[in-house]
Amino acid sequence: MTSLITSHPIFMATTVISQSQHNFPPRRVQLQLLRPTTRMLALSIKSDHEIMRQQMVADEDESFAMKGGEGPHSYAKNSIVQKGLIDGSKRLINEAISKCFDPKEHIHGDDEPSTPICIADLGCSTGPNTFCAMQTITEAIESQFQSHGLASQIPEIQVLFNDQVSNDFNTLIKNLPQQRNYYATAVPGSFCGRLFPKQTIHLVHSSAALCWLSKVPNEITDSDSSAHNKGRIHYTDAPKQVVDAYAAQYRKDMGNFLHARAQEVVENGLMLLQFPLSNVVLDSDVDPAKVFELIGNCLMDMAKVGVVSEDKVDSFNVPLIYPPVKDVKEILEGCDECFSIEGMEILQFKNMVSLPTVQIFVSWFRAALQGMIEKHFGAEIVDELFERFAEKVKEFPDIMDTDKLKLDVLFVLLRRKTKNKPKAMAMSNAHINGF
Amino acid sequence: MTSLITSHPIFMATTVISQSQHNFPPRRVQLQLLRPTTRMLALSIKSDHEIMRQQMVADEDESFAMKGGEGPHSYAKNSIVQKGLIDGSKRLINEAISKCFDPKEHIHGDDEPSTPICIADLGCSTGPNTFCAMQTITEAIESQFQSHGLASQIPEIQVLFNDQVSNDFNTLIKNLPQQRNYYATAVPGSFCGRLFPKQTIHLVHSSAALCWLSKVPNEITDSDSSAHNKGRIHYTDAPKQVVDAYAAQYRKDMGNFLHARAQEVVENGLMLLQFPLSNVVLDSDVDPAKVFELIGNCLMDMAKVGVVSEDKVDSFNVPLIYPPVKDVKEILEGCDECFSIEGMEILQFKNMVSLPTVQIFVSWFRAALQGMIEKHFGAEIVDELFERFAEKVKEFPDIMDTDKLKLDVLFVLLRRKTKNKPKAMAMSNAHINGF
Repeated sequence: MTSLITSHPIFMATTVISQSQHNFPPRRVQLQLLRPTTRMLALSIKSDHEIMRQQMVADEDESFAMKGGEGPHSYAKNSIVQKGLIDGSKRLINEAISKCFDPKEHIHGDDEPSTPICIADLGCSTGPNTFCAMQTITEAIESQFQSHGLASQIPEIQVLFNDQVSNDFNTLIKNLPQQRNYYATAVPGSFCGRLFPKQTIHLVHSSAALCWLSKVPNEITDSDSSAHNKGRIHYTDAPKQVVDAYAAQYRKDMGNFLHARAQEVVENGLMLLQFPLSNVVLDSDVDPAKVFELIGNCLMDMAKVGVVSEDKVDSFNVPLIYPPVKDVKEILEGCDECFSIEGMEILQFKNMVSLPTVQIFVSWFRAALQGMIEKHFGAEIVDELFERFAEKVKEFPDIMDTDKLKLDVLFVLLRRKTKNKPKAMAMSNAHINGF
Repeated sequence: MTSLITSHPIFMATTVISQSQHNFPPRRVQLQLLRPTTRMLALSIKSDHEIMRQQMVADEDESFAMKGGEGPHSYAKNSIVQKGLIDGSKRLINEAISKCFDPKEHIHGDDEPSTPICIADLGCSTGPNTFCAMQTITEAIESQFQSHGLASQIPEIQVLFNDQVSNDFNTLIKNLPQQRNYYATAVPGSFCGRLFPKQTIHLVHSSAALCWLSKVPNEITDSDSSAHNKGRIHYTDAPKQVVDAYAAQYRKDMGNFLHARAQEVVENGLMLLQFPLSNVVLDSDVDPAKVFELIGNCLMDMAKVGVVSEDKVDSFNVPLIYPPVKDVKEILEGCDECFSIEGMEILQFKNMVSLPTVQIFVSWFRAALQGMIEKHFGAEIVDELFERFAEKVKEFPDIMDTDKLKLDVLFVLLRRKTKNKPKAMAMSNAHINGF
């Protein structure tokens, strides 16, 4: 995948071949994705059913979703930023499928039907962005069959749209494209846990979702903890303990994410993942997480005039992180038992999105946060909060200056390794990035 | 399946072996399910993708669903009748799986994981009844593995919950059992069309849903047609042309249903289907469709006092049918190219359900019809309509007398035939009902 790599040579793709290939036994598994250097998670050995049951309970505990419906503040009407991201990554999706998707793996002779292709979009929200991404992917796959002379054997495609239990799936389903070329299915649950049966997914996609944590780290809201995040709603401008707690939760979530996918994705299956990042280098650069500092300041202002209680603000935190690229790379390289990295490229926010107005900027975050804020503070404070936020944005215009706002996106192409592969074969994969 | 059959000897199971086994080519199919005697449908030859695309457009045209949410008039709170049906069929489900589900088909040696088992519940509504049925089925499957000494190799199970696009999937998803032993997936769309990729479903279940037509027959609302259903909302007490139009739509829908499932269900896969029926024999028997005559009379009374217009009543029809058992048997026997009938049993409504109050009886139909009525007449008439209906029920108490109301349910167990099976093998299946 030359172009994926050479256009940003500092993020050279790596294919790390593990010394001992690990097989998951059918019913008992242990997390072995992260290298010891990236803090191996201390999960006890559990059966898949136990993990699945645990996960399902966890789903009910904390579940965040974009604002549903199609009203003026809904995600459906306020996701132009995320749309820019999907459009921007279209080229990368096409390249990835063109280079790494092998149509012949789905063909089994004249008498047998082709294996249906299962694509999962993780963190799909309510549309329409997910529909654009799925169209790009399904068309790229169909093109692969055509270019290999297999146009008459294109398999049926099933798309599994995943998001949190609290996502507005009714809106998603109502707006499914009528002319789609796939079977549509909605799968509720956190992508940090298992969502699908073993070895059933051929391609995983996730856009603008892997920045969300599965939960607010416990110690952040514990007033006895040194990581108690008093007077803030995020790690921005917070003590090191708070920043560390967010980073630890992210590592844990990404470990669980990769562990779950390692079981669900078929051998040679692909993952096209986008990781929102912070890329602050210069003093004049603005960290994208600064947004939550501004919103937190608005809430503290509202606490001072008695609209909300200070305790309520202290106990509210946004479970979202924009990590530096090195953290994401470290996590991905730590899962080399199961996935090889076939390509990486940084997409710069400023090249994908232009933010013309304060209103669009504010609406972007309102669609993302409204559900969470209503649940914690009550619906009655939402309008005032985002009016105050709009004023704060005007006072600090750098926040929506796409030259200064260092919100990058790391596009990564992973391939599920085959199990029990002879070493000679495995080594040959080390050169796969060269073509 | 002795007990399924001998308890109601008049509905002896039949396994009809076709003279020429038919294979669907991978990409071009033709409907060949119904015998010519049951009016072969004149569908032109189309590719699956064309059919799928057509189906998806059709989904948007007419879509009926139970009342969503969890309010006082919701299906979730008013489905005790359907619950009785599911409880009543629990024994039959257990017998069917015990006799016909072969766990060894899902085991592939020590190194390969077991094939996940995919179960589809068609017309699932919002719960909780579907969850009870799925629990019965998944526990019965797990028992099969245990009784064959394969307890350590129980495959993962995926349940695909299907209902119309307009179904309240958010309520379904929110109420999924936390302790379930399966992966849950929601699949929107009419079960008269394709819902899943080819040969991916191992077991289909449908309860209290196959009485719903995909649409009101066109001629019923055409004022120029001899089948125009003026002054009524159903075929009860209607001219023969109206009754025939309903019956023709039912045959067409069931043909499409079986055609779609024939492609989706794996070889030897099972279908556990419940067909609500009318079984009127005596003059004192009450046809279950009489309910819609009473509701139609209420609407005409409201038209007389100007609450609704008579035209509105003329153009409203309930797309639901309780056919006689012979019609259903004829349709099922007509699909012998693809499915063998492994068992049949009539469940009598009076043995499953007791209807203690007028209020429960009225609420049952309100949950089913409210969405449709609101869409056609507006929400403002619903309360008055069902108050009037409650009065009508009191005037005609036989309608809720479970001895007189002849609403039976035909429970059928079908098995997907294997393709290209040598005749000798196929013939041996003719004796399968004897064990």
